[in-house]
Amino acid sequence: MQNTEQYILSQQERYQTTLFEFLRIPSVSADPKYRPDVTDAAVWLEKLLSYLGFQAETIATKGNPLVYAETPPVPDGKTILVYGHYDVQPPEPLDLWETPPFEPTVREGNVYARGATDDKGQFLTHLFAAEAYLKKTKSPKIQIKFLFEGEEESSGSVSLYEFLKNETNRKKLACDYVIVSDSSMFGENQPAITYGLRGILSFELFIIGPNRDLHSGDFGGTVLNPGIALTKMLAGLVDGNGKILVPHIYEDVCEITSLEKEELQKLPFNEQDFFKKIGLNEGFGERGFTTLERRWCRPTFDINGITCGYQGEGSKTIIPSQASAKFTLRLVPNQKPEKVAENVKRRLMTLLPPGVQMRLKYEHGAPGMLSPLESPYIQKAATALHNVFGSPPVFTRQGGSIPIVAELRDRLGAEVLLLGWGQDDDNPHAPNEKFSLRNFQRGTLVSAQLMHLLGE
Amino acid sequence: MQNTEQYILSQQERYQTTLFEFLRIPSVSADPKYRPDVTDAAVWLEKLLSYLGFQAETIATKGNPLVYAETPPVPDGKTILVYGHYDVQPPEPLDLWETPPFEPTVREGNVYARGATDDKGQFLTHLFAAEAYLKKTKSPKIQIKFLFEGEEESSGSVSLYEFLKNETNRKKLACDYVIVSDSSMFGENQPAITYGLRGILSFELFIIGPNRDLHSGDFGGTVLNPGIALTKMLAGLVDGNGKILVPHIYEDVCEITSLEKEELQKLPFNEQDFFKKIGLNEGFGERGFTTLERRWCRPTFDINGITCGYQGEGSKTIIPSQASAKFTLRLVPNQKPEKVAENVKRRLMTLLPPGVQMRLKYEHGAPGMLSPLESPYIQKAATALHNVFGSPPVFTRQGGSIPIVAELRDRLGAEVLLLGWGQDDDNPHAPNEKFSLRNFQRGTLVSAQLMHLLGE
Repeated sequence: MQNTEQYILSQQERYQTTLFEFLRIPSVSADPKYRPDVTDAAVWLEKLLSYLGFQAETIATKGNPLVYAETPPVPDGKTILVYGHYDVQPPEPLDLWETPPFEPTVREGNVYARGATDDKGQFLTHLFAAEAYLKKTKSPKIQIKFLFEGEEESSGSVSLYEFLKNETNRKKLACDYVIVSDSSMFGENQPAITYGLRGILSFELFIIGPNRDLHSGDFGGTVLNPGIALTKMLAGLVDGNGKILVPHIYEDVCEITSLEKEELQKLPFNEQDFFKKIGLNEGFGERGFTTLERRWCRPTFDINGITCGYQGEGSKTIIPSQASAKFTLRLVPNQKPEKVAENVKRRLMTLLPPGVQMRLKYEHGAPGMLSPLESPYIQKAATALHNVFGSPPVFTRQGGSIPIVAELRDRLGAEVLLLGWGQDDDNPHAPNEKFSLRNFQRGTLVSAQLMHLLGE
Repeated sequence: MQNTEQYILSQQERYQTTLFEFLRIPSVSADPKYRPDVTDAAVWLEKLLSYLGFQAETIATKGNPLVYAETPPVPDGKTILVYGHYDVQPPEPLDLWETPPFEPTVREGNVYARGATDDKGQFLTHLFAAEAYLKKTKSPKIQIKFLFEGEEESSGSVSLYEFLKNETNRKKLACDYVIVSDSSMFGENQPAITYGLRGILSFELFIIGPNRDLHSGDFGGTVLNPGIALTKMLAGLVDGNGKILVPHIYEDVCEITSLEKEELQKLPFNEQDFFKKIGLNEGFGERGFTTLERRWCRPTFDINGITCGYQGEGSKTIIPSQASAKFTLRLVPNQKPEKVAENVKRRLMTLLPPGVQMRLKYEHGAPGMLSPLESPYIQKAATALHNVFGSPPVFTRQGGSIPIVAELRDRLGAEVLLLGWGQDDDNPHAPNEKFSLRNFQRGTLVSAQLMHLLGE
């Protein structure tokens, strides 16, 4: 292990040069004009994996290619699968970047570039760790597989979902543990293991009234205003404290154990700071739960956008013909997206007043995820983090959703571990995205240690 | 009177030529690029009034000029004031016009042009009627005043409001009756006297939450979503049947007399057609009132527009930083706009949940209006309409508001009469605006008859 560590420390310059080369490829998946660059990124990645000594290939899909690689199988040994995505968010608005988004620049120990933390810099740590592990270990005790996709920031991993439906493909990916580094630490020097994610349900609701906008003087009082119908229906989905008013929605909710409650209480979470940063004096939400409990462990309902009638300057006295709203629910582990979606729809049908029609578009859904804290895998990851960072990790959940993670777990029957090397202020979807080079190194060290520990 | 009538019938060609010339001036007040044309229209109108034999002048204001004219005073005689506006709506969208908006074209007895029915064609009838009345009457028994403005379609008559604040100006405009022709008949051959208008209150409500849009996964459950706060507050302003939930709002409402209820029942109003035209099977509104009662005689609440969060394609999982809504109330005679506005504000303050802030922008307000049906003025107008159209007028109210009309009534202490020569399908604010040339003639005849009758 010491050999591996020394090797990693000696290779920092090469690692950084490689990362910067990767960051120069503008692999923006959401914008068609970058399509050739997305392909370039996949090809570049396959070449890197081969160069590092793995059996690598590019797998064509209907969308962007998957990049896969593996080390030789180890009889009776464990297998880990590293998942990541080589595509990045669009760089716009460009004028807010201090240095060009695809020209990596180092300032105060951070590399600034689109994709630095999300996800190129984070996942490269495992490639370099595996290279070092293989090079410095006489007979490797685990098999390592790599799977990278190029649609995480655009279609929501459609091609990978498709790929996972096929049994031969699942056999190829078969593993005991999935490692994902696409999240944040709990603080600058506070490593974290994220053992839970919320799921998501996304909808758009359309309320359709008269066949055109009407004059509110000539028609006010004679027809139901679709804007009013919409606000009343949305208001009927949640109570004044944030409790969701959808039948059966709390039935499958996995309750927070008293042990977990205690652990959450111990986290160095500064609630005042948390709200101050977003310009608020106080929080809000379901009674009987702390802020972190509501943020990570409870289902929530949020309106993401409303479109209705006249939105220009001044006033326009109309009854809008239509009104629509985008809304999402965050689900917690054990809730079934399809079941909740069905109940949301039923609830809206009962809330629909006569005089207007509704159309509910179900955009997408994914379940939450919860890994067992007592798993030896998690314990070993904690040891590796403790060794490298000098302090034990905290165990956190995440309020957001990474739909493909739950899919990998379910399809492959593997445990999932989220080891984030990012920071909360890394700006992953904003201008001036950055990634700490110190954490780039520490992440590589942790990953290599974990490979050793999983082989013991 | 017969002489006057014959004179009017003999002058049709000249009247139409004059109208078409007027319609060629693109006096669009809302668009600064037409400012010279707006002035041209005022100058053109002053010249026409002089040519027709009246003492005319253009009165400068901070905005667009007023055009004023009068006939000599008549001791012990009544005075009427004709009000109208020479500005027009913007012509856009231009590609939907069958013929150019400022090139008047006659098709099937209608002249098509922007401003044809709103309001140039309608108010010119009174100029020609007055010219004929003066020419064919040895000693006129009434004085006729004309007041035209150029801001009805843009600022809501700001300069005229200002003008009416001055006592000297009010003395100049002093009159017994105000005639306004800027509305519709009840059907193709069914004249109407509009004796009531609703008032209006216009607001924009802003709900302000966190200092930026937040990720709904990272923050969902910890902060109050401004979109949810807005929908709940709006939903709290009106019940499921359209009854307004603002304290005291129904206290000052002028109840519909049983006599008026009977009259409304008698109107040839085809309710099924009314809803079918706007693509609906049924109406909606406050219980215990008919469609026409709700449309004309009851206060209403309508959302005109909502702006909140993400409105593009697909989904964006945010908690919007802000949400806002434009909404209007229609008031009925006897309700005081300031009092209702104050109560709306108070109601919203009680509905405001902790965790967000509100800002309420009061856009404008105007009271409703109701003229006494037993007035001799209305009776004489009814006689004139009956004589010209061959059938008696129906008495109607209007659900919309013409704020300046109530102001003229209150400031001048005069009775107001709305004599509309338009049709419901004249497209006053839409492409292919039109005005019936037959009604142009009939309107002129009615106006001349009324001048005679008011002098008796």
